[in-house]
Amino acid sequence: MDIKEMLEKVKNGEVSIEKAEESLKKLPYEDLGFAKLDHHRKLRSGFGEVIYCSGKSMDHLVKIFLNFDEKGVDVLGTRATREQYEKVKEMIPDAEYDEIARIIRIQRTNHEKKGLIAVCTGGTSDIPVAEEAAQTAEFFGSNVIRIYDVGVAGIHRLLSKIGAIQEANCIIAVAGMEGALPGVIAGMVDKPVIAVPTSVGYGSNFGGLSSLLTMLNSCAEGIAVVNIDNGFGAAYLGTQINRLTEGNHGE
Amino acid sequence: MDIKEMLEKVKNGEVSIEKAEESLKKLPYEDLGFAKLDHHRKLRSGFGEVIYCSGKSMDHLVKIFLNFDEKGVDVLGTRATREQYEKVKEMIPDAEYDEIARIIRIQRTNHEKKGLIAVCTGGTSDIPVAEEAAQTAEFFGSNVIRIYDVGVAGIHRLLSKIGAIQEANCIIAVAGMEGALPGVIAGMVDKPVIAVPTSVGYGSNFGGLSSLLTMLNSCAEGIAVVNIDNGFGAAYLGTQINRLTEGNHGE
Amino acid sequence: MDIKEMLEKVKNGEVSIEKAEESLKKLPYEDLGFAKLDHHRKLRSGFGEVIYCSGKSMDHLVKIFLNFDEKGVDVLGTRATREQYEKVKEMIPDAEYDEIARIIRIQRTNHEKKGLIAVCTGGTSDIPVAEEAAQTAEFFGSNVIRIYDVGVAGIHRLLSKIGAIQEANCIIAVAGMEGALPGVIAGMVDKPVIAVPTSVGYGSNFGGLSSLLTMLNSCAEGIAVVNIDNGFGAAYLGTQINRLTEGNHGE
Amino acid sequence: MDIKEMLEKVKNGEVSIEKAEESLKKLPYEDLGFAKLDHHRKLRSGFGEVIYCSGKSMDHLVKIFLNFDEKGVDVLGTRATREQYEKVKEMIPDAEYDEIARIIRIQRTNHEKKGLIAVCTGGTSDIPVAEEAAQTAEFFGSNVIRIYDVGVAGIHRLLSKIGAIQEANCIIAVAGMEGALPGVIAGMVDKPVIAVPTSVGYGSNFGGLSSLLTMLNSCAEGIAVVNIDNGFGAAYLGTQINRLTEGNHGE
Amino acid sequence: MDIKEMLEKVKNGEVSIEKAEESLKKLPYEDLGFAKLDHHRKLRSGFGEVIYCSGKSMDHLVKIFLNFDEKGVDVLGTRATREQYEKVKEMIPDAEYDEIARIIRIQRTNHEKKGLIAVCTGGTSDIPVAEEAAQTAEFFGSNVIRIYDVGVAGIHRLLSKIGAIQEANCIIAVAGMEGALPGVIAGMVDKPVIAVPTSVGYGSNFGGLSSLLTMLNSCAEGIAVVNIDNGFGAAYLGTQINRLTEGNHGE
Amino acid sequence: MDIKEMLEKVKNGEVSIEKAEESLKKLPYEDLGFAKLDHHRKLRSGFGEVIYCSGKSMDHLVKIFLNFDEKGVDVLGTRATREQYEKVKEMIPDAEYDEIARIIRIQRTNHEKKGLIAVCTGGTSDIPVAEEAAQTAEFFGSNVIRIYDVGVAGIHRLLSKIGAIQEANCIIAVAGMEGALPGVIAGMVDKPVIAVPTSVGYGSNFGGLSSLLTMLNSCAEGIAVVNIDNGFGAAYLGTQINRLTEGNHGE
Amino acid sequence: MDIKEMLEKVKNGEVSIEKAEESLKKLPYEDLGFAKLDHHRKLRSGFGEVIYCSGKSMDHLVKIFLNFDEKGVDVLGTRATREQYEKVKEMIPDAEYDEIARIIRIQRTNHEKKGLIAVCTGGTSDIPVAEEAAQTAEFFGSNVIRIYDVGVAGIHRLLSKIGAIQEANCIIAVAGMEGALPGVIAGMVDKPVIAVPTSVGYGSNFGGLSSLLTMLNSCAEGIAVVNIDNGFGAAYLGTQINRLTEGNHGE
Amino acid sequence: MDIKEMLEKVKNGEVSIEKAEESLKKLPYEDLGFAKLDHHRKLRSGFGEVIYCSGKSMDHLVKIFLNFDEKGVDVLGTRATREQYEKVKEMIPDAEYDEIARIIRIQRTNHEKKGLIAVCTGGTSDIPVAEEAAQTAEFFGSNVIRIYDVGVAGIHRLLSKIGAIQEANCIIAVAGMEGALPGVIAGMVDKPVIAVPTSVGYGSNFGGLSSLLTMLNSCAEGIAVVNIDNGFGAAYLGTQINRLTEGNHGE
Repeated sequence: MDIKEMLEKVKNGEVSIEKAEESLKKLPYEDLGFAKLDHHRKLRSGFGEVIYCSGKSMDHLVKIFLNFDEKGVDVLGTRATREQYEKVKEMIPDAEYDEIARIIRIQRTNHEKKGLIAVCTGGTSDIPVAEEAAQTAEFFGSNVIRIYDVGVAGIHRLLSKIGAIQEANCIIAVAGMEGALPGVIAGMVDKPVIAVPTSVGYGSNFGGLSSLLTMLNSCAEGIAVVNIDNGFGAAYLGTQINRLTEGNHGE
Repeated sequence: MDIKEMLEKVKNGEVSIEKAEESLKKLPYEDLGFAKLDHHRKLRSGFGEVIYCSGKSMDHLVKIFLNFDEKGVDVLGTRATREQYEKVKEMIPDAEYDEIARIIRIQRTNHEKKGLIAVCTGGTSDIPVAEEAAQTAEFFGSNVIRIYDVGVAGIHRLLSKIGAIQEANCIIAVAGMEGALPGVIAGMVDKPVIAVPTSVGYGSNFGGLSSLLTMLNSCAEGIAVVNIDNGFGAAYLGTQINRLTEGNHGE
Repeated sequence: MDIKEMLEKVKNGEVSIEKAEESLKKLPYEDLGFAKLDHHRKLRSGFGEVIYCSGKSMDHLVKIFLNFDEKGVDVLGTRATREQYEKVKEMIPDAEYDEIARIIRIQRTNHEKKGLIAVCTGGTSDIPVAEEAAQTAEFFGSNVIRIYDVGVAGIHRLLSKIGAIQEANCIIAVAGMEGALPGVIAGMVDKPVIAVPTSVGYGSNFGGLSSLLTMLNSCAEGIAVVNIDNGFGAAYLGTQINRLTEGNHGE
Repeated sequence: MDIKEMLEKVKNGEVSIEKAEESLKKLPYEDLGFAKLDHHRKLRSGFGEVIYCSGKSMDHLVKIFLNFDEKGVDVLGTRATREQYEKVKEMIPDAEYDEIARIIRIQRTNHEKKGLIAVCTGGTSDIPVAEEAAQTAEFFGSNVIRIYDVGVAGIHRLLSKIGAIQEANCIIAVAGMEGALPGVIAGMVDKPVIAVPTSVGYGSNFGGLSSLLTMLNSCAEGIAVVNIDNGFGAAYLGTQINRLTEGNHGE
Repeated sequence: MDIKEMLEKVKNGEVSIEKAEESLKKLPYEDLGFAKLDHHRKLRSGFGEVIYCSGKSMDHLVKIFLNFDEKGVDVLGTRATREQYEKVKEMIPDAEYDEIARIIRIQRTNHEKKGLIAVCTGGTSDIPVAEEAAQTAEFFGSNVIRIYDVGVAGIHRLLSKIGAIQEANCIIAVAGMEGALPGVIAGMVDKPVIAVPTSVGYGSNFGGLSSLLTMLNSCAEGIAVVNIDNGFGAAYLGTQINRLTEGNHGE
Repeated sequence: MDIKEMLEKVKNGEVSIEKAEESLKKLPYEDLGFAKLDHHRKLRSGFGEVIYCSGKSMDHLVKIFLNFDEKGVDVLGTRATREQYEKVKEMIPDAEYDEIARIIRIQRTNHEKKGLIAVCTGGTSDIPVAEEAAQTAEFFGSNVIRIYDVGVAGIHRLLSKIGAIQEANCIIAVAGMEGALPGVIAGMVDKPVIAVPTSVGYGSNFGGLSSLLTMLNSCAEGIAVVNIDNGFGAAYLGTQINRLTEGNHGE
Repeated sequence: MDIKEMLEKVKNGEVSIEKAEESLKKLPYEDLGFAKLDHHRKLRSGFGEVIYCSGKSMDHLVKIFLNFDEKGVDVLGTRATREQYEKVKEMIPDAEYDEIARIIRIQRTNHEKKGLIAVCTGGTSDIPVAEEAAQTAEFFGSNVIRIYDVGVAGIHRLLSKIGAIQEANCIIAVAGMEGALPGVIAGMVDKPVIAVPTSVGYGSNFGGLSSLLTMLNSCAEGIAVVNIDNGFGAAYLGTQINRLTEGNHGE
Repeated sequence: MDIKEMLEKVKNGEVSIEKAEESLKKLPYEDLGFAKLDHHRKLRSGFGEVIYCSGKSMDHLVKIFLNFDEKGVDVLGTRATREQYEKVKEMIPDAEYDEIARIIRIQRTNHEKKGLIAVCTGGTSDIPVAEEAAQTAEFFGSNVIRIYDVGVAGIHRLLSKIGAIQEANCIIAVAGMEGALPGVIAGMVDKPVIAVPTSVGYGSNFGGLSSLLTMLNSCAEGIAVVNIDNGFGAAYLGTQINRLTEGNHGE
């Protein structure tokens, strides 16, 4: 019984005021206000579902994929192993796998991509995290330009690309080791820079802590940081900004 | 002598090719490409200058204020003590001071504010950092809605404001102690959430480290973190996003 | 207009179903479900209000005290300085101050105390935190037995008191330095032990971190930990357990 | 020779006062006061024994299980691998294994369960720790309600369950990543909340440290924390509180 | 009533066996076994009492000093400020103060000193901690040789003193900064080396953590570490070893 | 040729001044002052050699064992795997292996053991480290009493053994988890206590850091700490103290 | 078209001033100033290329080796596994492998070595890092003297080698555990000391952090630190200093 | 009397064998090998003495200054407060003070400066540390070029100065906050870069730890790090390298 129905029954006396009042007091979290919170209003609506594959049991994982597949939505599986992919592919033959990004993708709809996000890395070993970001952003309908291996130890490589970076609506800057890349970019570009520290490195890198701290302490303006190796998180935020810029967030 | 002028002199023989070549090889960082990097293209252009006052000597600080004042630009001095303010006011009588945000402001131009940024705090003790963010965002031309003391330990206060928060182009969520506020908001709103950990707290808060880690580890999507107590940084980034949304970033 | 009133107006046609429905959809966080969350159902209901004084401005603090005082409720001000107390006393002459617990108390009602909480400390320097706990528990209506300076470096002092400790419904064990007290007590008593690490100590104590870690790693059963120096938090939890035991939690 | 017997012999002259005195001075730790400390008075009395299986050699483990089995007591083996279980099952055929909770259980007696403990998790990956807690609490005779995957990033799922949570005598709140769940629950329920941080997460989670710190720093009242992943410890404490509430602790 | 007395009363019927038994069950921690734990058997017996002055209120401190003074025992007050000393001196005129060691001493008995402890420091800034150790050891009746400023950055200074160091029964090696001194000494001397890290230093010394870790990781044999700046603890342990060596520990 | 002999030969012309000078310049570290440093004067002299096996290549390890074996000295190999042992046994058939202590021992001489060292552990999982300590101390000629599983969570087990512990010249107290054992023992016994933190534990134990900090912060007197899991180091220091006490250090 | 050519075309009218200006504005990062940054001016020029092998896929690695091999340059592959070496050797038969240094080397040119670098280690387990340093320095044309196992726990071994160490232009001091070696050497030698902490050790060594902190806190003068285990980095810096000293840096 | 002389006297009977032997046994640290360690051979020889003023008592400090002053040597006092300076100036009127570098200087000799060291900073707040480095290097006879405020957040400022930086024999790069400057410079210049992290910054800078870790993790080649804020240490090492380059280290 929905609210309107109940109000009608109150009006025509089928339901007493006391009973209606009691019933309403229990409703709020199920039937009323949470339309606002409905996950169908989230970014991914219209673009399919995302599954974080790491640590999920094979059975459980396949079930989730099949479930979404039956609904006909596109699916992006992040942090997926090849083993997971192969199992999924047995059931859903048009599943694709990207070894570097560790992403399983089932994409059948073809959205026109909008805007532009620049994904940059300091070194070649940051590329897996960057690809997770780039492919996620593309899955959610953003154009992406990849500018890899432009770390500050060879600053001229970065400088020669700065024009291209400035074209984007926002920049995802991925870096391990010293982690200085996002700060340098933010100093040269007046767009939001989303910094992604990676766990790449050795010695006193402490699993990405060093680059995380560097990025948080950047004195450049217009920069914020997501968790270590969190390419997906950066892409989600980047897509939000890209869509706001392109004006289709209210679609 | 600018490039055009030199080329003309090369053409008419006033400058030899050798001399021009040598001269050009020295130029790049001064006269050529860095127009792109010109700080007048940065966010603050047209909105005045920002001075980080903390730790600056009184003499040095007053000189910087006077220098900007003579140019007629608006000035925002962050992390300013009352002593610093009083010294500045002696020289520039229409300087204003906000005790809570610790901001000195000299604002004469009147920009129309655009868009909307929501600044939220978990507790009342997070308000100084939030006010630094809010007043900075206003200085840079954004409308700001303040929603304070809506921390997750009393989640119903937050829920009753969620409609207002959803109106904003982006949210700055300021929280100390457990630092859970940004994650909760990001779970309910599909807009970029800029998380600001504060050093508020005691015990094992470790000067903000606890809330910083909480925010980085949030499982909500669409969230990124700036440094502890860095209200200014959050506002700068928030303004970038707000302007991109309102479409005037190319102005 | 409350729900009942509105339902009546729906019934008698004063309010249309459409308008009622719309109105109900906005209500939930204000008027409906949050009766459950109503702070009057919280522990402190009937026992007065608690104010965390530390860091509050004098004006703000006095205003809060006066506000509660006018309502005639008892007030417990924690982490209060003598200066704060003296200012409060000017306005509310029967305010009392405990220098050691740093507590301002305005208590006019006289609740019968119930049950028993044992508050133990390892050393004499842990007493301020223990007193914050003990006086808070008393304020909330629990009987408290204080057993101080029974640290494990002189284990026989503790052993001679163990009988008294076993009488309590729960134990609050406060310790700095090595922090071993709660584990030893939990090994001897089959009641909940709430461990409170204190920042007492020097050298590699790291502001209480050492005792916090010790307590978390205790191999004894029936122990949980609150934040460093958080006597209030321990007392609140202890009172919950004490009341549950005494059966008056549903009062 | 027990005390009474010896006193009688003193009385009738069979034992000299000197010899009795000497003998008494040696007794205390064996025969006198420690009846109070007797482990048969501990929580588990009447409910069987608990074995922490992790790291124990196969031989040693089987011996312990057989030893308890011969005594006819129920046994709960925590942190057990499937290999350990299979070896135990060879000897004790009615041993059961729960893969998720990693618990071996040999339960023949059928205790009526009392009271209610709510076990909640933030995400699905916190379930193994939650199940360790839930099954331990059940083993010790508590009713348990499981409320999983109600993390704060989707706060509406939690809100829709809050009524059920409020029915319990105490709440065990298990969460990794940001670790905000226990604080949110404690803000809505006036019962003891036992917070269990989990090592679930990646990036700057640091093996559970992030959620541990969040929980310790929670500004909600009525919350205490056990060690990372320590589901058993939370269940033991939870059962103590549950029994105290149900009034059978003096049984 | 002591045990013997009670046994006599049992024998002659003045006390019933039942009453005696009950009484004995309560006794253990007060009257029986803990003679062994009697603090009069501790190191300090016969050498006076030690007071840790830091953080004690003036009133409380003076009372403790007076209390011991009335008993005629010598007193050593560690971590004392000059203010504390001056207040004590008002009441006990023959109190003496050592500014560097921050020690108040009231010594009237004149014990013959025995054995030898070498107290070494890496630099001159480690001397306050070393003097706390040296004067404590002397107070407890040990001969002390001071060998200061022999840090490993000028290893030849240490080498020229190694003969004298080898004469001691044990060595207290005090060092801040890099903290390498104890390891070097332990490599050259076959006597116990008690390492005391100091909080001297700056940069990444982290309040003595750096030297603490160095000392714990020393690959030399025959070395153990006390807490940062804990000169008193080192002296106490050193005196134990010195006395054991000199054969008077059973006195 | 010693110095005196050489000087005589210089005097009577058997050695030229040039040759003597050259020879003297090389001598200092071998023949002059550093006789004091001669490793034959170290603890192990007369008791054989010690090899730290962990991480050594099989070839290298066997060579070292054979080398010592040819010299006829006893050998103690610490941190040895069973694989290493089996390879050594192929070459030296009377090599023995202790699985728990991970020690390879080749012992042919039969020293009379002297004095007494008590080796205590908090739990059963601390036994491997304790056995490394105990067997090392025995190898170096000390009597050892083992008192295991007397951790503070069941303090009565410790109390019943305290008499035996007090007989020893020094105590090695091994504990993981909360690490409180050494402090409790040091509070009851006036002998040096060498504390050994172990990496046993989980959650926030951080590989032994928790127990290390607990031990460093113990408020008991007469305690010092060696590195995590360093049973050998504790035994070496313990043997030094034991020998000093037994008076044979000058042998 | 290079700059000179363009200027000539401007002069003779083949290119308009406007076009030349526009073209120049794009040039800087490709054709002008960055000659200075040209990697052919780097240390390695004339000495071949360096490849960091760790973590590179087999295919990718072989491709890089072949690419350099075709150009005829020498190649140094650091952090290489034996598996990687064997794959490389299949393609390039004269590749050599050093198991200890984990270095693949393809060296055909024969540079005369210059100057002298001393590479010292504290223990034998530091040798892999030291060999990475030594062989890298030799690859880049420096003479190297190896002085291993001279740690400060047996300081006399170091002292007997100090003359040889003083001959070098700079010293690379490699040490794990306590990490005191570089400080001791810097105290005795007036040449730059490059300190390399190693992750060798156990207990509270924390993967090299302990020795890193020791080295940073050394009170000796003339010392700087590279990252944990970074033998290559130390060798690169050492070679720079060695070449500057030998005067061939301008070659 | 040197060794040769003494041997001659032994030969011709002027010195007895006994006396010679005794004398030789005392010599090693003074007259034999350790001449090499003579501090007069250290860098500072001929350039005066350095005093670390911080924490020294006024009396002690003035005594040291007077002592050196009487010997007529130049003196550099680092980390000096203005109070310390004023006290020194009372006694030594030509003492000078630099407020920013916190250096007291008494310089009467006029050494010709050699070579060139570039001292760079990321921001203006790093200047005090940079000035300590620069003025120390000048005191020791190096030419210094100061290039301040060229941090990577405004990379074009750095690029415009890169030519000047490349002229130096070595670079001291001082940076707080993110600490990326040294890595960027090392990527552009093939000279040793000495990185100095500063404690400038707030939030998660942790007193310089953030920039320290960044610098250690730099992927640029030719970089090593000194302790946080250690301008003096960087200058000492820089001067060593500068002198080696200029060829006067053997003077």
